[in-house]
Amino acid sequence: MNRLGQGEFEIIEQLKARCESSPVVRLGIGDDCAILQLPPGELLLTTTDMLIESIHFRRDWTDFLSLGRKSAAVNLSDLAAMGALPRALFLAVAIPADLTAADLDLFFTGFLEVCHASKAVLAGGDTCSSKGGVSICVTALGTAPETAVVRRTGAHPGDGIYVTGTLGDSALALQWLMTGRTPPPELLKRHLEPTARVEVGRRLGTAGVPTAMIDISDGLLADLGHILTASRVGACIEIDRLPLSPALRAVGDDDHLLYDRALTGGEDYELLFTAPPEAQGEIDRIATDVDLPITRVGTISETCGEVTLTHAGSLCPIPQHKGYKHFSAGA
Amino acid sequence: MNRLGQGEFEIIEQLKARCESSPVVRLGIGDDCAILQLPPGELLLTTTDMLIESIHFRRDWTDFLSLGRKSAAVNLSDLAAMGALPRALFLAVAIPADLTAADLDLFFTGFLEVCHASKAVLAGGDTCSSKGGVSICVTALGTAPETAVVRRTGAHPGDGIYVTGTLGDSALALQWLMTGRTPPPELLKRHLEPTARVEVGRRLGTAGVPTAMIDISDGLLADLGHILTASRVGACIEIDRLPLSPALRAVGDDDHLLYDRALTGGEDYELLFTAPPEAQGEIDRIATDVDLPITRVGTISETCGEVTLTHAGSLCPIPQHKGYKHFSAGA
Repeated sequence: MNRLGQGEFEIIEQLKARCESSPVVRLGIGDDCAILQLPPGELLLTTTDMLIESIHFRRDWTDFLSLGRKSAAVNLSDLAAMGALPRALFLAVAIPADLTAADLDLFFTGFLEVCHASKAVLAGGDTCSSKGGVSICVTALGTAPETAVVRRTGAHPGDGIYVTGTLGDSALALQWLMTGRTPPPELLKRHLEPTARVEVGRRLGTAGVPTAMIDISDGLLADLGHILTASRVGACIEIDRLPLSPALRAVGDDDHLLYDRALTGGEDYELLFTAPPEAQGEIDRIATDVDLPITRVGTISETCGEVTLTHAGSLCPIPQHKGYKHFSAGA
Repeated sequence: MNRLGQGEFEIIEQLKARCESSPVVRLGIGDDCAILQLPPGELLLTTTDMLIESIHFRRDWTDFLSLGRKSAAVNLSDLAAMGALPRALFLAVAIPADLTAADLDLFFTGFLEVCHASKAVLAGGDTCSSKGGVSICVTALGTAPETAVVRRTGAHPGDGIYVTGTLGDSALALQWLMTGRTPPPELLKRHLEPTARVEVGRRLGTAGVPTAMIDISDGLLADLGHILTASRVGACIEIDRLPLSPALRAVGDDDHLLYDRALTGGEDYELLFTAPPEAQGEIDRIATDVDLPITRVGTISETCGEVTLTHAGSLCPIPQHKGYKHFSAGA
């Protein structure tokens, strides 16, 4: 017996009525496939991400409005990391019997809000029941002219290393939740409802600024590692430059702990990119335009895969735990 | 402790090495997004489907090779139903701790086999752990020229109603599994490893034959209902024309039960389409070319939503249970 009291088709009909139109989406929810007509000459960028109950979220920590927002944002963040303009999202949800229609409605509301803010539309999906927890899978499609697409492969020695926003907020909130404490509201919001840096990613890509870019989902060091491997370069991070939010500093942890969290904490969903020194002026202009700090935190070096950390010019040890890995020992 | 004994990145690396190349996929697994370059002027068709343990499959009924094949096939079937050529698939899997590396390898093998057979490639995805069962979400991308795309909306009174292959095999196998019996191998295979009718769907679309088309996942009557609603027409089905496999007939159930299963049994993944009488010659040619029977089972009528069933020219009652619905009463 399901508390939703409605069939799959009714859920789809309700959701369909709330979907916005788009010049790119010729046909949205309601046939075997969605039909999209992409702008001529642009590349299609596609990403898919799952959010699984008890792995990526806990129902006693998040409400469904936040969960809907986050489900859209983490996928849009991958599009942002390649400089793409989001176009259409596809949402699959497996729904356990104890979920109420109100919860499901809140979830869709949050999801559609974030789609709307990024000018993407919900164009299709799947709903089914679940005998376990809630499983969510989102696929996001974006487009970009070839010249605006940023991969992980182009970082050069001498390039600056930049991050948007602030680091470590989400990780602190998660750590407090896991130890039974209530995180400060600003930090909790950063964990439960991360913002995808869609506009800044697209602006950077269009301006041809980044030589490599990635979003920080597994922690700065872990995700920087992907750029270093792909670009066959190394990096020096000046940890005293890492951007920390006033809310994170106000927690009163010592600097070592704060920087460690900024280096290894996951789910910031900020953008990490590399750019040559002459791009600094353009980066500053974009940061001003989108009203988001972009901070230079280090420099790309020559030795493939080597990362050094400095604090006030002196070398520091690398944290042993570099970031979140599914299936890693002890997980 | 996870029996896989390897991290997410190692799983991705192994899978990446097994992915085929494609002229459409400029960049597959390994960055934030896949990059696709679609043929100029073609439309993009996208579908997403979940397969959830204990809802869509049971590990004591299927092995992981079959599950991998089915996960690809059910999505390719949606592309086939609109006449699209499959291009790229995205595979997200949530993996519980008790899954072995051998199971996962079999799953990927089955999935990649079916991709290969339809000339589509695996271009991206997501892997994560699960505290519940296995959750699989596949997104399939295909392309078609606008003239080849078939929707559900174009059925006209007087059009013939056609189905590919045979009906009811999968439903019988499922019924036997649910009652503890071992189904005949041919029927079990139809349930565990359905074939997506990719080639025939594309051929029909390219030839401009169908006025409406859908794949039969919820049962002939339920899926025909979607065409009737979308096209605002009715239908008469001649149940003695329903194509039944020799293996299904050999089971020895009486005709009433056989036809009921063919009308309401889910997961046939055959194509159901409508076409004007003058298309019969082209339909026969395509059936011969792809070596798959295409059977006329009825005629589109004028009264919106009305379905009549006949047997040897006499009216028959409509089965009460029209097809599988998630969340329906008692589910």
